[in-house]
Amino acid sequence: MDKDICFSSAQNLAKAIHERELSVREVMEAHIKQIKRVNSQVNAIVSLNEEVALKEAAKADEALEAGKPVGPFHGLPIAIKDTHNAIGFPATSGSLALRDHYPSEDDLIVERLRSAGAIVIGKTNVPEFAAGAHTFNEVFGATRNPYDLGKTAGGSSGGAAAAVTCGMIPFADGSDMGGSLRYPACFNNVVGLRTSPGRIPLPKAALYSPLGVQGPIARSVDDAFFMMSVISGPDNRSPLSIEEPGEKFLEPVQPDLKGLRIAYSTDFGGILPVEPEVRSNLEEQVKVFQDLGCQVEEACPDLHEAEEVFQVLRAWEFELSYSEIFNRFRELIKPSVIWNIEKGRNLSGPDIGRAERLRTLLYNRMRAFFTQYDALILPVTQVAAFDVNLEYPVQISGVKMENYIDWMRSCYYISAVGNPSLSIPSGFTSGGTPLGLQIVGPHRADFEVLKIGRAFEHATGYGKMRPEIALGEKIN
Amino acid sequence: MDKDICFSSAQNLAKAIHERELSVREVMEAHIKQIKRVNSQVNAIVSLNEEVALKEAAKADEALEAGKPVGPFHGLPIAIKDTHNAIGFPATSGSLALRDHYPSEDDLIVERLRSAGAIVIGKTNVPEFAAGAHTFNEVFGATRNPYDLGKTAGGSSGGAAAAVTCGMIPFADGSDMGGSLRYPACFNNVVGLRTSPGRIPLPKAALYSPLGVQGPIARSVDDAFFMMSVISGPDNRSPLSIEEPGEKFLEPVQPDLKGLRIAYSTDFGGILPVEPEVRSNLEEQVKVFQDLGCQVEEACPDLHEAEEVFQVLRAWEFELSYSEIFNRFRELIKPSVIWNIEKGRNLSGPDIGRAERLRTLLYNRMRAFFTQYDALILPVTQVAAFDVNLEYPVQISGVKMENYIDWMRSCYYISAVGNPSLSIPSGFTSGGTPLGLQIVGPHRADFEVLKIGRAFEHATGYGKMRPEIALGEKIN
Repeated sequence: MDKDICFSSAQNLAKAIHERELSVREVMEAHIKQIKRVNSQVNAIVSLNEEVALKEAAKADEALEAGKPVGPFHGLPIAIKDTHNAIGFPATSGSLALRDHYPSEDDLIVERLRSAGAIVIGKTNVPEFAAGAHTFNEVFGATRNPYDLGKTAGGSSGGAAAAVTCGMIPFADGSDMGGSLRYPACFNNVVGLRTSPGRIPLPKAALYSPLGVQGPIARSVDDAFFMMSVISGPDNRSPLSIEEPGEKFLEPVQPDLKGLRIAYSTDFGGILPVEPEVRSNLEEQVKVFQDLGCQVEEACPDLHEAEEVFQVLRAWEFELSYSEIFNRFRELIKPSVIWNIEKGRNLSGPDIGRAERLRTLLYNRMRAFFTQYDALILPVTQVAAFDVNLEYPVQISGVKMENYIDWMRSCYYISAVGNPSLSIPSGFTSGGTPLGLQIVGPHRADFEVLKIGRAFEHATGYGKMRPEIALGEKIN
Repeated sequence: MDKDICFSSAQNLAKAIHERELSVREVMEAHIKQIKRVNSQVNAIVSLNEEVALKEAAKADEALEAGKPVGPFHGLPIAIKDTHNAIGFPATSGSLALRDHYPSEDDLIVERLRSAGAIVIGKTNVPEFAAGAHTFNEVFGATRNPYDLGKTAGGSSGGAAAAVTCGMIPFADGSDMGGSLRYPACFNNVVGLRTSPGRIPLPKAALYSPLGVQGPIARSVDDAFFMMSVISGPDNRSPLSIEEPGEKFLEPVQPDLKGLRIAYSTDFGGILPVEPEVRSNLEEQVKVFQDLGCQVEEACPDLHEAEEVFQVLRAWEFELSYSEIFNRFRELIKPSVIWNIEKGRNLSGPDIGRAERLRTLLYNRMRAFFTQYDALILPVTQVAAFDVNLEYPVQISGVKMENYIDWMRSCYYISAVGNPSLSIPSGFTSGGTPLGLQIVGPHRADFEVLKIGRAFEHATGYGKMRPEIALGEKIN
């Protein structure tokens, strides 16, 4: 029964609550029980506040009993990425410098989740300042992969994805500058959407920067649609806001992909090293699109300028976002973050100008590419989930990685061009950890990449395979 | 008769053509005659191609005779800002370095004007690289103010505004980084709208920069609405695109301003020197809003950070946009442009980061301000139209201007915050040159600032006073 609740789809759970088949208290208690059972091994959820969770659940039941109008997420438990602000909970960003930071305001995405009726019960673990795609920090420790506790859960939305795959929460918010929604979705066998800039308005230090975006993490594409209907839509706190309302994502999804033109590349047009097992997974799985009636061919736009675009603009944004905290707390900050901020400090204005011009060039190249194709299929990651005790993989297929972000090129090249990208489960390594595909779509085609992902998900079913640890069976 | 045609509204002219009351040939010949009569004194239109104009006009008449479907601007003559590309015409940007530059593609705005049926007959004069709000260059010379030929017509859309006020074309395209739509609109007694970033999609070197935008110049607000219906609306060539379609601007305009909360400031909250005649004009004219039933009070957000934001980000964008041309043709470029590019070369990455953070701060301050007010009324310019032989006013009310953009603060402070701003005629100096108000609105409220401007225009009528030179009477 508890297991049925914890692995129900978010949509069915919301429906059961609305129709009073389940009380919010029952739903909340089941999830808290699951967290207590699993989280000590996985370390996905931090700053859990059981008391608040149960009190809010009781209030939510009262609202239903009183016949009050309630939102679409009424009574659903959620934990918020620890880099995002939620009143009542610390927002540490995994940094000792912010260990006691209690925000006075909800972030916009949290405000939307709460107005839709979701109940915030805690936070999800992140790497320090969300830097890097492996979740570990000195405040809470590392998040472990539920499919193999010796491996990384990915990051930076690592706690979020591990919590979702383990049934500790029905879905989660995440964010993605260089792959922070896509790596953890991939390594935890769930769905993660890097949205188009402005799709989920994001107030931040550099309002016009499209590099960092937010998005949903869910156990199914349908739940990602459901979450998008609440967290997307315009708000004047971000000048990049896309005006299309969130309800767009509730529109019926045409399941037929017949005739779609699908491009794919295992190695980004030959410019990235990719482990053999990752390559062969993709080569095998693109056939599914053929079976779905798509025209599938190997093709990839030239993305080599994405290296400079991302490395420069990320360093620039790190400097402008974290410089003050860096000046005050340098001794508390991990070397990789220091390296990234100092890299930003050493940039010249013309360096930023050149990166911006290259981003424009790439934007136009992608635009041209998507007049020929409807989607581009790429591996999410160049390597399978790696040892939880490594900061990052030091080499990929014999190619040395020079710093903590070099191994993330498969995701950050797409961040640099600004297209939406869905990370969707596509099977497992021989070692049993999950792999995934990126479905990259044209400018602002968030709905369409979800649609394509949904058809793939229904045809394959990999995303339904939950980790044994979450189901109550021992692993490792 | 010719005068009736040349000073007809664009809407009426389009209607007369559609209804075959006037042939396109008649309309074209009247405008060419007006250009020949007036342009030698004003120097607004450059690269005129009479032959092409008459040939296109004949084709346009044939299309009507054949009953073909035609666009809303069918047969209207237009001249394009010389910094914009229109196939068949040189695009010199007023630079000797680009004297022989014939573009191979239309700019997006030109493409839209042409698909709507407008006939490009030439270009409108600009300062070299549109740098500065006074139109002069070594390719074509200076554009003169039609109300006083010894004075500046403003810039950088100076040729555009002077051509429109003189009935040489019914309306014109312009662009505005630091006031380039607003100064010329003001000095030529016409309407100019600095649009919201993304309202008119603008493919350029730095796609995500909101500093430079395009907009309409027209003899009435109704014609500005009409022009916006064609030139605005989304296009994936710009990732800042606002999705609202151009037809939005054809919606009926509610003329009533009753109850609107209008803030005004003659001196930007005390931080800018403003000539007495400009101040007193604004103080007098804001009363019109009271008569229209608005609540009017003196108030202004703190804008002092706009100085750094604009000066830094403009220099950065100059460097990234013009560095290549600068390296090749340095000896052909005017000192002010060299100064601006070199300023950009000397910026550090963190300088850009700091400017970006300050822009975010200002954006949020404006957002807060516009929860209390519906519009902010400011002077367009701190000085009246000045001597055409000066590069820029060297002092304002005793305050020295250090460079060619310092005197443009009244406009570029608004560029820095990103809000839409309408420049609307508000009377004349004792010397007989026009003055104007800026109507600044909330985020993306282009329609609303036009609406407010329209009510002011109808209540006052200043914008109807065409220069004598244009009407066929001698001045000076």
